Amino acid sequence: MPDQSVSKLVSCGAEMYAWAEDLFPICRSITGPGVRETLNYFQNIVPEFQMSEVPSGTEVFDWTVPKEWRIRSARLTGPDGEVVCDFDDNNLHVVSYSTPVDETLSLEELQPHLHSRDYWPDAIPYVTSYYKETWGFCLPYDQHMALKPGNYHAQIDSELLDGSLTYADMIIPGESEEEILISSYCCHPSMANNELSGPIVTTAIARWLMSLDKRRYTYRIVIAPETIGSLAYMSRHLPEMKKNTVGGYILSCIGDDRAYSYLPTRWGDRNTDRVARHVFDTCVDSYTEYPFRTRGSDERQYCSPGADLPVSVVSRSKFTTYPEYHCSKDDLSVISPEGLQGGFNLVKNIIQVWENNSTFVRTTPGEPFLSKYGLYEELPFARGDQFYFIRDVAAYADGEHDLIELAELNNLSAVDCIDIVDKMLACGVVERG
Amino acid sequence: MPDQSVSKLVSCGAEMYAWAEDLFPICRSITGPGVRETLNYFQNIVPEFQMSEVPSGTEVFDWTVPKEWRIRSARLTGPDGEVVCDFDDNNLHVVSYSTPVDETLSLEELQPHLHSRDYWPDAIPYVTSYYKETWGFCLPYDQHMALKPGNYHAQIDSELLDGSLTYADMIIPGESEEEILISSYCCHPSMANNELSGPIVTTAIARWLMSLDKRRYTYRIVIAPETIGSLAYMSRHLPEMKKNTVGGYILSCIGDDRAYSYLPTRWGDRNTDRVARHVFDTCVDSYTEYPFRTRGSDERQYCSPGADLPVSVVSRSKFTTYPEYHCSKDDLSVISPEGLQGGFNLVKNIIQVWENNSTFVRTTPGEPFLSKYGLYEELPFARGDQFYFIRDVAAYADGEHDLIELAELNNLSAVDCIDIVDKMLACGVVERG
Amino acid sequence: MPDQSVSKLVSCGAEMYAWAEDLFPICRSITGPGVRETLNYFQNIVPEFQMSEVPSGTEVFDWTVPKEWRIRSARLTGPDGEVVCDFDDNNLHVVSYSTPVDETLSLEELQPHLHSRDYWPDAIPYVTSYYKETWGFCLPYDQHMALKPGNYHAQIDSELLDGSLTYADMIIPGESEEEILISSYCCHPSMANNELSGPIVTTAIARWLMSLDKRRYTYRIVIAPETIGSLAYMSRHLPEMKKNTVGGYILSCIGDDRAYSYLPTRWGDRNTDRVARHVFDTCVDSYTEYPFRTRGSDERQYCSPGADLPVSVVSRSKFTTYPEYHCSKDDLSVISPEGLQGGFNLVKNIIQVWENNSTFVRTTPGEPFLSKYGLYEELPFARGDQFYFIRDVAAYADGEHDLIELAELNNLSAVDCIDIVDKMLACGVVERG
Repeated sequence: MPDQSVSKLVSCGAEMYAWAEDLFPICRSITGPGVRETLNYFQNIVPEFQMSEVPSGTEVFDWTVPKEWRIRSARLTGPDGEVVCDFDDNNLHVVSYSTPVDETLSLEELQPHLHSRDYWPDAIPYVTSYYKETWGFCLPYDQHMALKPGNYHAQIDSELLDGSLTYADMIIPGESEEEILISSYCCHPSMANNELSGPIVTTAIARWLMSLDKRRYTYRIVIAPETIGSLAYMSRHLPEMKKNTVGGYILSCIGDDRAYSYLPTRWGDRNTDRVARHVFDTCVDSYTEYPFRTRGSDERQYCSPGADLPVSVVSRSKFTTYPEYHCSKDDLSVISPEGLQGGFNLVKNIIQVWENNSTFVRTTPGEPFLSKYGLYEELPFARGDQFYFIRDVAAYADGEHDLIELAELNNLSAVDCIDIVDKMLACGVVERG
Repeated sequence: MPDQSVSKLVSCGAEMYAWAEDLFPICRSITGPGVRETLNYFQNIVPEFQMSEVPSGTEVFDWTVPKEWRIRSARLTGPDGEVVCDFDDNNLHVVSYSTPVDETLSLEELQPHLHSRDYWPDAIPYVTSYYKETWGFCLPYDQHMALKPGNYHAQIDSELLDGSLTYADMIIPGESEEEILISSYCCHPSMANNELSGPIVTTAIARWLMSLDKRRYTYRIVIAPETIGSLAYMSRHLPEMKKNTVGGYILSCIGDDRAYSYLPTRWGDRNTDRVARHVFDTCVDSYTEYPFRTRGSDERQYCSPGADLPVSVVSRSKFTTYPEYHCSKDDLSVISPEGLQGGFNLVKNIIQVWENNSTFVRTTPGEPFLSKYGLYEELPFARGDQFYFIRDVAAYADGEHDLIELAELNNLSAVDCIDIVDKMLACGVVERG
Repeated sequence: MPDQSVSKLVSCGAEMYAWAEDLFPICRSITGPGVRETLNYFQNIVPEFQMSEVPSGTEVFDWTVPKEWRIRSARLTGPDGEVVCDFDDNNLHVVSYSTPVDETLSLEELQPHLHSRDYWPDAIPYVTSYYKETWGFCLPYDQHMALKPGNYHAQIDSELLDGSLTYADMIIPGESEEEILISSYCCHPSMANNELSGPIVTTAIARWLMSLDKRRYTYRIVIAPETIGSLAYMSRHLPEMKKNTVGGYILSCIGDDRAYSYLPTRWGDRNTDRVARHVFDTCVDSYTEYPFRTRGSDERQYCSPGADLPVSVVSRSKFTTYPEYHCSKDDLSVISPEGLQGGFNLVKNIIQVWENNSTFVRTTPGEPFLSKYGLYEELPFARGDQFYFIRDVAAYADGEHDLIELAELNNLSAVDCIDIVDKMLACGVVERG
């Protein structure tokens, strides 16, 4: 029964949460085995994902792809032989891209290599050093402050080698070559909302898009490491993306159940923004729109001058705004099946509005004689929203007002107007503009 | 004395009210003798009105002109022979376009043919069924609810025949072929504000326009049945109207003394709207602007895609907003000489602003030396609004700012600035832009 | 030491105040020796000032240059021989452009020639009669009301002769032919804020502009009598001014320490306004923007249709808004070294923003790798305004956003961003757009 199948593809909160449970333990960074393992997992769900490698040293615009990082173990041992922190307990204990070390140091010598945050006394902070070679350990502030003087043994079994950066992408073709980008990133170690939720919802959306009978737009799905990954991706695909992209969304921090957040494109007034704002306005109880100034993910690259792609960010609790952001507290308890489902629904609704939005035209002056078409309710005193919406679609069918505008004029969501518009189109009262 | 004559033409509230008294008893509908009698009455006042007939069955855009309706009598008699309601008492007692009937029915069988409104317990509602053949009686809700079981005799002596729909129009020529439409409708039976006030004020405005020495614009005056009448009119005149129409106003519900109301064109930003809003803003104490969404009269046809005429609605208490709307309470006590005069003045002021509005240009840089022209008041410390207005007309005489804008800049009504502008034009300080 | 010299040129409040002390006693009018003496004083400070004369009777647009006025003495003597008022005590005692008189009159005959203001009971008002030949005395209201009946002797030793109107101007060349006008006026007798402050700050600004190593724009400095002077100036220079002028400021009432005021150009949205508003918004604690309707100085001529120069007014306490305006209370106690310095700083900042404002472009897609250029702070958690400003200059380097906009986006003054932008330009992260 195909209906059940579609229903399963759109009611996938619990399934997405299970994916998160599988993927959470993997140690990801901007390169290395953890990224590949994660992308393979998504490819198992949607086989159309293509994996690509970009060699270390490749110049991508103003940047250079760094060496590949591999880590096997890391442990900091205290003066009495006690284990201060161990990569096996939590991969956040190691500064991402740490160089190998096997050294005994005094506490004083060690301090520059220790990272903690006083505002997270019991959480391990997330620290990286991709472009400046160093090593370090991260630990809770209280533990850090309680370290006693003496000799510590720092041991990190890692490697920085000429390897490659890995990303996955796929093109889901539609009737038009115009395409919509859905992009997320997979470079964060064991944190759940930021960032397993983004690639997970992206994968579920890709699977749902594949299941549709037809698509008006072509969809480009990208999962890559943040910043250097999207730069590497653009360095290979920018000409075609600039030619075809009409809209795009980065999915990030989209798995918790506390808020909805929107960060618009650099321009703030692209169709990307218009469709998203309409869906946020009409499909969720409340949301916060953040200024582009608070950008922080790959919109920094996609929207950069020269790239100029109209890409925004769709989130539940946006990065930097929730208390567990970028530390070990961002674990599986932060996200939920309901939170992931809410994020999925939002993106699905945005896509459905893209697919159905258009202006309308009438070829005959005067109002249509609605009774002829079964569009005029019998009881004029009980006319509801739908009646006024029908009347307005006809009255504004001048090729200038689109579904979004007509829905908003009637305090409706365009998502809920798709069926009635299809009926009006079917009986010829209006045509698409 | 011609002055007295003009004065009489603009102080015509009592005269218009007398016309309403004459016309109130006539049973009008969208076709039939009542419409013709009413239009003949207006033609007696302004002989330039032309009468036209559109045969039943004529296709007008998406609609068809219905059969002509004639009614002679209608009476509903109760179980004890008592008269429940009689067309001779009030023509609202019969559903407009009722088919003939002469039948005895039980109360239960009769109920689908009875119409009342619980929110008007003592008023006869106004009900029509132009495009679905049926018959019916309308009566006060309290009377309806008190009807006792038994056999009722329904007798309607009416006729639906191949006849025609009637309208009246006239063209009042001006210096320019650009024309302004003044349109109202005459299809309502015995109701006063909606709608004898509209065609009455329209007729008085037509008479006043005819009396002017010269007119900048051409005026098209139309009185036709609502909806099907304006559609029928447009089906004959749309090409010339689209070519020439620069503005237009539907006059409706313009005879009571409680409010002023404006319902803009579909676009909301046409010159039609700009002139009207300026006059509403500066010539009456307060008014309400309603959204185009609440449209309900012939703006639905004139503003429809394909017609695209910039027509709005000028009202005192707008249709649907006053308690007596569409029932027998909308009688001659609802309108008044003062109410009709207020409506007339509003429309006259709108037309005067159209006639006098323009931008201005100066041909010499620098401020004009106002003293040379007698435009500089002697006492600079007692300079009033007029002085600042003169100064601003010169300062903004760049072909971009018009009389309306300059009046508003000085918190004046353009209506009150016409004389001083004429003086400035006469002495050459500015020219029309 | 040239640095000290520049520092002296920009910290010149005390020096400007000393100029005011020198110039205050001179009796200026729209023509005559007082204007020439004043302009000579400024020429001694900035020798590049050029003096010009426009003969009486010259037609300038809609106006005619009046005869030159010279006054030697004026005295009104009372019935008992007591001196009521004497030009030697205060040159405001005589109506400017008074014709000669030597006559004995009764108090009643004298009254039309006496001027006082009840709202300034103890101040001499400033009265002129340039274009209507008459004579008069000005005196405090209390003194005026206490005059006793009897014969008064009015004696004015003045002259209206075919002479000329005097103005001073200079062109300070820059890299571009595009020019910025700085204009003030010198036709007021002994009043300090209105108007010695304007030509004094203008002269100090001209001196500072001359001292700069290079200038992007050309500067046109004009000091002329108000109204007829700017008209006479434009009658000789308008074609070149229309061709080259990209901005302009009238400096008036710019020497007191109570307020900052801005009166925009006629259009309100020229670059003149944008730069000025940014500097007012970000460099002073508070200011008032007045509407163009309250114009009163030479913006009336520069902004007039046909002239159409984008010129606005920069003031401390704007004309007509402070209690001492246009009477003998506007003496040297109203202005101060601090007040003049504040006015100078404001104009200097406006010019510096003009000199440095531009859009920016990047030639490489993606964000710049800021670390390469030393533009990325080491401690990401202590990133300050400057870091976000750098990031935004790069993110918006699309040739559409300029320094002003990018500074405002970061709640900074463009004045404070000049150095960092120079650094970004120097290392090639962005280029000027």
